[in-house]
Amino acid sequence: MTPSPFVLGLQHEARTSTLPINVGIHEPAEGGKKVRNTLIWINEHGTITSRYQKLHLFDIDISGGPVMKESNSVEAGRDIVPPIDTQFGKMGMMICFDLRFPEISLRLRRQGAQMLVYPSAFTVPTGRAHWETLLRGRAIENQAFVIAAAQCGRHNGKRVSYGDSIVIGPWGEVMGRLERVEDADAEPEGGREPQLLVVDLELGLVEEARRKVPLLRRTDVYPEI
Amino acid sequence: MTPSPFVLGLQHEARTSTLPINVGIHEPAEGGKKVRNTLIWINEHGTITSRYQKLHLFDIDISGGPVMKESNSVEAGRDIVPPIDTQFGKMGMMICFDLRFPEISLRLRRQGAQMLVYPSAFTVPTGRAHWETLLRGRAIENQAFVIAAAQCGRHNGKRVSYGDSIVIGPWGEVMGRLERVEDADAEPEGGREPQLLVVDLELGLVEEARRKVPLLRRTDVYPEI
Repeated sequence: MTPSPFVLGLQHEARTSTLPINVGIHEPAEGGKKVRNTLIWINEHGTITSRYQKLHLFDIDISGGPVMKESNSVEAGRDIVPPIDTQFGKMGMMICFDLRFPEISLRLRRQGAQMLVYPSAFTVPTGRAHWETLLRGRAIENQAFVIAAAQCGRHNGKRVSYGDSIVIGPWGEVMGRLERVEDADAEPEGGREPQLLVVDLELGLVEEARRKVPLLRRTDVYPEI
Repeated sequence: MTPSPFVLGLQHEARTSTLPINVGIHEPAEGGKKVRNTLIWINEHGTITSRYQKLHLFDIDISGGPVMKESNSVEAGRDIVPPIDTQFGKMGMMICFDLRFPEISLRLRRQGAQMLVYPSAFTVPTGRAHWETLLRGRAIENQAFVIAAAQCGRHNGKRVSYGDSIVIGPWGEVMGRLERVEDADAEPEGGREPQLLVVDLELGLVEEARRKVPLLRRTDVYPEI
């Protein structure tokens, strides 16, 4: 696969700034008809060291609201990628609609994840109704940090993303967040200015939450995930 | 097992009022050393038609807050009880700490539950931090009503329950709720007055949520629960 100028540019920036970058991209699937919705980890030396291909595709039909069928153009992934070692801790990678399925984060938690990432582009109605609650729920039930970068604003005449990038602690508390769209219809053309959120993560809080409330699973009654 | 005056009284009331009752009780376990934490369904004729024994026991240790070890005195259940048919719809039964484990509600959802019940006695700190978020999360991810009756107020010198009985719709919206304890230390002796919450459930909303956002699980990648 030929690396895109976008990804090459990010690799260069990662190297130059000695900072890792976690970014979602679309790349061609085999056969050339569909694309993959992929999350890549570029390490601080500019090397792509991990890639996760989105498992759950986003096919929704909201009356009077958005209708989307991601599976028309996107090839679904076939694997959960075990948590990757970063200089910040063990990170489990998921994408957007994966958030609705507890199974994938439970697997990553069992495999040692201390942080769960969900880069996303939620719609405005589902963002308003579900976004914060599901993210905080995943943080609480997995006793892990949740880091969810979110596209915000109007993409084109039809599509608007909710935004509300958010970082949540392992006790469920919101540690920081960015802008969100309250009214999709009133959202002007041209998108929004990028924003940056900087949060310090203390991994000790993960251990503390897990010590306070031990979650002993009953895998004698239901399967281990 | 000899029925208790408490349960016999409820059976009488159910029969007299032609109303079913769903209530949590403690009953002796075999061997006589421990008890069972059981949720029973008394139908509108006063007959106990179903019982669920709590699967996940509540052992927590919060520094400067509650320390409890339910497993010292309670025998854990061994089964998930398939959803029961009620005149209101198909109901999945869980109890309190079960709320922290997505697996049990996912199983009940797969077996057809339209309503999930979680009668509970959360502590005040975990209630404040986790209660509403986890309940709304379970409603959203299972696209089901969540009905959570909750003990509220001081039981004794040491123990205070959070309250906040709540009914949530399958899109995650709070449909009704009762009193909660904001400050455990300031909570007086003697408990609180009982309160009653009446909510109309439209089962059509369950089907609507499931139609709008189909949740196709990837049981080729993780186990079916």
